[in-house]
Amino acid sequence: MSGNTIGTAFTVTSFGESHGLAIGCIVDGCPPNMSLSEADIQPDLDRRKPGQSRYTTQRREEDTVKILSGVFEGKTTGCPIALLIENTDQRSKDYGKIKDQFRPAHADYAYQQKYGIRDYRGGGRSSARETAVRVAAGAVAKKYLAERYGVKIRGYLSQLGVLKPDMNNFDWNEVERNAFFCPDVFKVGEMEEYMQTLIKEGNSIGARVNIIASGVPAGWGEPVFDRLDADIAHAMMSINAVKGVEIGAGFDAVTMKGTDNRDEITPEGFLSNHAGGILGGISSGQDITVSIALKPTSSLRLAGRSVDIHGQPTEVITTGRHDPCVGIRATPIAEAMLAIVLMDHALRNRAQNSDVKSITPQIPAQAPDESL
Amino acid sequence: MSGNTIGTAFTVTSFGESHGLAIGCIVDGCPPNMSLSEADIQPDLDRRKPGQSRYTTQRREEDTVKILSGVFEGKTTGCPIALLIENTDQRSKDYGKIKDQFRPAHADYAYQQKYGIRDYRGGGRSSARETAVRVAAGAVAKKYLAERYGVKIRGYLSQLGVLKPDMNNFDWNEVERNAFFCPDVFKVGEMEEYMQTLIKEGNSIGARVNIIASGVPAGWGEPVFDRLDADIAHAMMSINAVKGVEIGAGFDAVTMKGTDNRDEITPEGFLSNHAGGILGGISSGQDITVSIALKPTSSLRLAGRSVDIHGQPTEVITTGRHDPCVGIRATPIAEAMLAIVLMDHALRNRAQNSDVKSITPQIPAQAPDESL
Amino acid sequence: MSGNTIGTAFTVTSFGESHGLAIGCIVDGCPPNMSLSEADIQPDLDRRKPGQSRYTTQRREEDTVKILSGVFEGKTTGCPIALLIENTDQRSKDYGKIKDQFRPAHADYAYQQKYGIRDYRGGGRSSARETAVRVAAGAVAKKYLAERYGVKIRGYLSQLGVLKPDMNNFDWNEVERNAFFCPDVFKVGEMEEYMQTLIKEGNSIGARVNIIASGVPAGWGEPVFDRLDADIAHAMMSINAVKGVEIGAGFDAVTMKGTDNRDEITPEGFLSNHAGGILGGISSGQDITVSIALKPTSSLRLAGRSVDIHGQPTEVITTGRHDPCVGIRATPIAEAMLAIVLMDHALRNRAQNSDVKSITPQIPAQAPDESL
Amino acid sequence: MSGNTIGTAFTVTSFGESHGLAIGCIVDGCPPNMSLSEADIQPDLDRRKPGQSRYTTQRREEDTVKILSGVFEGKTTGCPIALLIENTDQRSKDYGKIKDQFRPAHADYAYQQKYGIRDYRGGGRSSARETAVRVAAGAVAKKYLAERYGVKIRGYLSQLGVLKPDMNNFDWNEVERNAFFCPDVFKVGEMEEYMQTLIKEGNSIGARVNIIASGVPAGWGEPVFDRLDADIAHAMMSINAVKGVEIGAGFDAVTMKGTDNRDEITPEGFLSNHAGGILGGISSGQDITVSIALKPTSSLRLAGRSVDIHGQPTEVITTGRHDPCVGIRATPIAEAMLAIVLMDHALRNRAQNSDVKSITPQIPAQAPDESL
Repeated sequence: MSGNTIGTAFTVTSFGESHGLAIGCIVDGCPPNMSLSEADIQPDLDRRKPGQSRYTTQRREEDTVKILSGVFEGKTTGCPIALLIENTDQRSKDYGKIKDQFRPAHADYAYQQKYGIRDYRGGGRSSARETAVRVAAGAVAKKYLAERYGVKIRGYLSQLGVLKPDMNNFDWNEVERNAFFCPDVFKVGEMEEYMQTLIKEGNSIGARVNIIASGVPAGWGEPVFDRLDADIAHAMMSINAVKGVEIGAGFDAVTMKGTDNRDEITPEGFLSNHAGGILGGISSGQDITVSIALKPTSSLRLAGRSVDIHGQPTEVITTGRHDPCVGIRATPIAEAMLAIVLMDHALRNRAQNSDVKSITPQIPAQAPDESL
Repeated sequence: MSGNTIGTAFTVTSFGESHGLAIGCIVDGCPPNMSLSEADIQPDLDRRKPGQSRYTTQRREEDTVKILSGVFEGKTTGCPIALLIENTDQRSKDYGKIKDQFRPAHADYAYQQKYGIRDYRGGGRSSARETAVRVAAGAVAKKYLAERYGVKIRGYLSQLGVLKPDMNNFDWNEVERNAFFCPDVFKVGEMEEYMQTLIKEGNSIGARVNIIASGVPAGWGEPVFDRLDADIAHAMMSINAVKGVEIGAGFDAVTMKGTDNRDEITPEGFLSNHAGGILGGISSGQDITVSIALKPTSSLRLAGRSVDIHGQPTEVITTGRHDPCVGIRATPIAEAMLAIVLMDHALRNRAQNSDVKSITPQIPAQAPDESL
Repeated sequence: MSGNTIGTAFTVTSFGESHGLAIGCIVDGCPPNMSLSEADIQPDLDRRKPGQSRYTTQRREEDTVKILSGVFEGKTTGCPIALLIENTDQRSKDYGKIKDQFRPAHADYAYQQKYGIRDYRGGGRSSARETAVRVAAGAVAKKYLAERYGVKIRGYLSQLGVLKPDMNNFDWNEVERNAFFCPDVFKVGEMEEYMQTLIKEGNSIGARVNIIASGVPAGWGEPVFDRLDADIAHAMMSINAVKGVEIGAGFDAVTMKGTDNRDEITPEGFLSNHAGGILGGISSGQDITVSIALKPTSSLRLAGRSVDIHGQPTEVITTGRHDPCVGIRATPIAEAMLAIVLMDHALRNRAQNSDVKSITPQIPAQAPDESL
Repeated sequence: MSGNTIGTAFTVTSFGESHGLAIGCIVDGCPPNMSLSEADIQPDLDRRKPGQSRYTTQRREEDTVKILSGVFEGKTTGCPIALLIENTDQRSKDYGKIKDQFRPAHADYAYQQKYGIRDYRGGGRSSARETAVRVAAGAVAKKYLAERYGVKIRGYLSQLGVLKPDMNNFDWNEVERNAFFCPDVFKVGEMEEYMQTLIKEGNSIGARVNIIASGVPAGWGEPVFDRLDADIAHAMMSINAVKGVEIGAGFDAVTMKGTDNRDEITPEGFLSNHAGGILGGISSGQDITVSIALKPTSSLRLAGRSVDIHGQPTEVITTGRHDPCVGIRATPIAEAMLAIVLMDHALRNRAQNSDVKSITPQIPAQAPDESL
């Protein structure tokens, strides 16, 4: 009801504010007997961690995760897994001056209207700091999906403003080597330069992130409302700053003819993947391909017009520590959300269909890398 | 779990197959004491009804809705409202030949893998015929939202292949006058011509539909997962053939700078609406603007390669009655889904926050028409 | 939210009023590939059907169920199963006079306070007529549980006022032969006599019904809140007129010592079953034993004091057709509810634990018949 | 799905094991702007705290609660409230020897069968230690219900084995003064004596606890499945060791005639309260009266027969620290569960029915104290 839980069979219930004592979540529904420790979760948290390059917020958080329950002698027990991340570097004084202002394009005004109260320190509950929790929970899902089903979930920055990686230079290894999760090593320099100009200017920029899940078995997803693509859209749009979601061909499908868009099938595999691995809301066995649009950060040093809590006009300048492009750190978050949705549907499908023995042929995925 | 219910406080549980006895739904959570009869629901069903122009499927269904429960002496009682639509024009013989084939880009293969069985007649549960049920349920939500909150939900076709209405000619009245829900009277002829060529060719085309909700009060939407935009994305992506969803500026935000994207505020109102009326997952009082991409129909007279249920290569030609552009009839469906989501959040917000008395100023929406 | 849906993985969403067009439900989550037809459901409906003896209401309803969806060529498809029962014998005129009265011990006053409106015809939504829907849905669950897991669910009347069957004469076959679901053939005459006196008097009486599920595998039930016993208690207490629920020893446990109450275990099986087959909220493999208390019918020909809708004192005499003991027809309803809960937990357990291979010994149930 | 969350509009998601790092929960859906601090929660935790008398387990836990989120400057914000209680006195060595045994009447065997693994230290997740979390969450609900609606929730021990308080000596103040929550000061000595004999013997005993909510407005509860009494039954039966639940007259209704059981109404109020304040699943405005049966503790120093994890016969003697009567400390737990259910239904009712203005007369409760 209050929207802090995602999932049905595999659920994540999140809590915490940017400048409170801690953030965390309860992961419920994870199958028992999977080995799990903090070391399985920390690497993804480290990928998302702030303050790692000059292109992200300078807030320093160790983001050390602690498992409080649900694991016994190194194995999951089937009981809820509580994950805790303490807030250590809260400089609340930075935010005192925005207490009485509604920053344009922030959640300030909407929270105030909804609740009649808001924790204004660092954006409180609306801060993207909450996404650390998602990354932690997603790591649990990723591990199970990989070990039990061989599913691999990866993402990359596919656009930074107008800058796009050249897909001919695409390299998954490169994604983990630069601060942008950019798959094209030759584009990284240009991105760095662009970000420096932007930071100097006090402005911010939008971005696009692509996420791909390979190895998803056919049959996951629940028609008609909780289609796999619908739940993915929900999860992605729930990430701070996301304004658009595409599955497969996405908006390109608008101008396509049926003969071009349909993915023909041969015994050797699908001949294309415009569907993004989902047919009728159910996975087809092909790669699941998702693309999301992230708006530019709204916290800017450049003054913007707004009103204060008394309805009087005011000028807002945000001097706190912020990402000049929230899209840069979005890759591990989007991967985590995709993992959570897939995990949920893996379990949901088992509830109803665990006895289904497919006697129909398995069509190979054969999704060409170019479809990314 | 099985995905046939949408909503939390206001729920719609759908049933029925394209060629079964009937389709229908149970609408639960509608507040009591609202006047309601079939006459309130039928008009939207008629807008979606097949066979009304040569540009949509020639299947003839009266789509007459019957209210089975939840209404007493013309008023809702707070009890579940069951809506029934009988199937009358099922020509199941049309589909006999596809029994053993997996039509490319259809749900056939995915359903077979998931359930080990499928009702292949007219696509069974995966048929877009199910969307009639959504339109009926959406009409109930629309009525309540309009009467209780003054919310107005409208949609239009914003793109048909490469053809776009000229926004200078935008006229809401025109939307209801032509077969395409096109707001530009001068574009209708071109669209007709294009569709005739396409039908002759045996091909299909994608489309884009925009939906707008005006008059939504600030404060609806539940952070962090069930944001209003996240739930809208879920609902939209659950519509057959939808492959992309945008809120506000959507993918255009990728190339925007923060200073251009943020919607500045003055006591007279917001100066722009790139956020699409949603901040931090909560409605801001501005127009809620949504845009969706629909892929071209997959059922084509032009042969496509596929495999049969034995894994052997086959050629698929679909001769049944189909829409050459599913996007054409999507407008009332998308409106209905937006209505269902808004209704759900109106009620959800009341559960927790019905005592909140806003002491903060109400910022006028002032969303310029061009933002559509 | 509005409470018309029960279950999580296997759900039943109910609709309909006593004197509306029809009652029915949507059963969602039933696994595919189970053979199912109306003939599988009708027998249980017939067991509950009114007007079969002089000891139950004289309303005559055929209670003929129709499957509207979810079954294709005689098999379930995994899609929602809509069940419809038309109301045929509604004598609404019988109820005109209670329109302005709140019958004591009825839902009239509470519905009016909650919704500000109520369908007073035959009790509307609060009528026990709704339980026909539960019996229909329960029949689907029963069939699956029996075929897939070998679970057998049976019930009987264990007390009618002060009259109790002699457990030495217990015979399951007898249960289906008399109008009371009484397992002791020698007690039936006494019960008939008692009921006739009661009917003459215009009064009613309470009852107790026991329900037993045999063959439930160990491991169903979800700690800590949705324990199997907790969900059973919920389902039983949701039946009209039920005021108490016991699992296993129930209230007898209050005066028992630990050494008497604990069910000791040997390799040959459990030595007793005071736990009612549930340990820590999870099934143990023993018989699941449940007992419920049903209050006497509140609709009486004997005048009772009440107030009318204007708050004025009034006398209420109910002349409609009613059961003098609602407990008599409760047996198939309680069986159905137990089936629905067990089915739900069977599927829920599969979601999370379908990979668990028990390496621990299976303790035989060995629950002696006397434990009933 | 995994059962660790209770509620729909007001939810409590629990985590933690008896001997893990911590236990806790996330309380979601609490309305904003209520003052809240640890001091509002601690008193109820202290009432439940172990080691306070010789009649409860000698484990010493401070049970100090920490609020991690959802409260800002002393007021709730509408965001999730995370509550944490660290485990401090875990003597895990006490439990080493039961690692390979299934203690009779414990959850050991059922957990092992369900999950294939179990945290055997102190019962792990199945330990009643988890109920501390419920008490903490219940305190939040109690506070809101009291402040917003004037609801008062209280409980007392109504039976200890065969010992019952004399209702003529009933005194709510006395309940808080003795270790048993016994309302009859003259019975306390007898109870102490009985418990000492029992402790010497190494045995345990069952108990009964009554809980009453006064001031609940008419109209809470959702027919037909999520009736207020059904949800109360669910919540009560989810408490460790509870084997029976009664609402109002409960099992006494079995032998009552309709004329005796119905609660007649006059403009001055209801003349009795056999319904326990709930009609048709909806609160009537009368006191809500609930009674629960608790089985005797299963952990005994007296040897019991069982099997080990290899299926071999064994003798179990439990030497850890345990309550000789779990019922003694159950009163605050049962109060908490009732508070959580009522809070949930208060909010659920607002979602759908916040516009209902009752024009019908409010019937006074007038529930005589004797009905307790």
